[in-house]
Amino acid sequence: MCLVKERILKSALNLFWRYGIKSVTMDDIARDLGISKRTIYQHFSDKEAILAQVIEEEITSQKCEMQKLDEIAANPIEQIIYASGQMRDTLANMNPTLLYDLKKYYPKAWELFQTYKKEHLIKNIQDNLTEGIKQGFYRPDIDVEIFSLLRIEQTVMAFDPTIFPVRNFNMMHIQMQFLLHFLRGILSEKGFEYYNTIKDKSAIEINIHEK
Amino acid sequence: MCLVKERILKSALNLFWRYGIKSVTMDDIARDLGISKRTIYQHFSDKEAILAQVIEEEITSQKCEMQKLDEIAANPIEQIIYASGQMRDTLANMNPTLLYDLKKYYPKAWELFQTYKKEHLIKNIQDNLTEGIKQGFYRPDIDVEIFSLLRIEQTVMAFDPTIFPVRNFNMMHIQMQFLLHFLRGILSEKGFEYYNTIKDKSAIEINIHEK
Repeated sequence: MCLVKERILKSALNLFWRYGIKSVTMDDIARDLGISKRTIYQHFSDKEAILAQVIEEEITSQKCEMQKLDEIAANPIEQIIYASGQMRDTLANMNPTLLYDLKKYYPKAWELFQTYKKEHLIKNIQDNLTEGIKQGFYRPDIDVEIFSLLRIEQTVMAFDPTIFPVRNFNMMHIQMQFLLHFLRGILSEKGFEYYNTIKDKSAIEINIHEK
Repeated sequence: MCLVKERILKSALNLFWRYGIKSVTMDDIARDLGISKRTIYQHFSDKEAILAQVIEEEITSQKCEMQKLDEIAANPIEQIIYASGQMRDTLANMNPTLLYDLKKYYPKAWELFQTYKKEHLIKNIQDNLTEGIKQGFYRPDIDVEIFSLLRIEQTVMAFDPTIFPVRNFNMMHIQMQFLLHFLRGILSEKGFEYYNTIKDKSAIEINIHEK
């Protein structure tokens, strides 16, 4: 990819992340880069075109991160704990309106995220659950399909300002509470014993105690 | 309330429960009762008027049931276990499209349910959580406000056919999995020990093992 295009995507990602999508204009991106709007239009037809590519690249990079974590995790519980660390990094400085903006105003870009959710995220959680049950860390009576959907939808729920108004709740705190609760709810006795030996390394616990 | 009016409400509740709201007509209610549509219109201006009153009565009766359970429950965990039994009864034979029908096609009636959710259900869960923490059955680090919202919203989520298509999932099974998971996720060690001594009485466990 040419350098200018890459810089535009990087600037847009950064601005969307901090201010949400709706409030960022092509002028803002041009100003941020110190280039003319005309230069931006040479590469992208409009803000939605930038947004689509920003999301595609973000998805690719998240997939990559998740794969790395899965490789270094010794077992499914560690995998979730590492994922909580990744989530912590992703959410830091993220404007909490981002996902809702996407759903409400940018249906095409939202679709990209939905496809990623269905084809990748849910599968990743299902694999974690199946493996955790197999290794005896999770309860054998949890329904993998139902809990993979619960996990993903509660992550999305935390972004919904009609349920968790931005001014009253801290997004990171909600997500960490959800993740820790989700994990504890699926653990078997063996899983609990193991979790208690490693929880001090966990970003979930760290976050909750920091609050 | 006069007898005819009561019979109309009872018939409508029964039909809505079994077939959802959208597909039930004034003709169906008249036919079910063996009375003329004219008689129904003497008491209710339209189906929405019947629906509103059906919901109000259902809410009153649920409040009453919840209060009874709260009185006989020895502690917050028993309260949740009894509530699972009540939920089991309520969901038996309930058309899973009911709640979504309400949200999509009957916004005024949906508002009644929303108000009940905000003013009564959430408070009831908050009280349970606060008391459970106080008595040492639940973890002290759970955020009562966040988890009362999670609990109520995951109950609603189970009714969402865009997440859990009716043909692929059994509503009761989802709800019992959610409830058991929610409870396990909030328990302290003391809570777990106690829960293990009484779980065989629990409708949640019974349902999961029956599946």
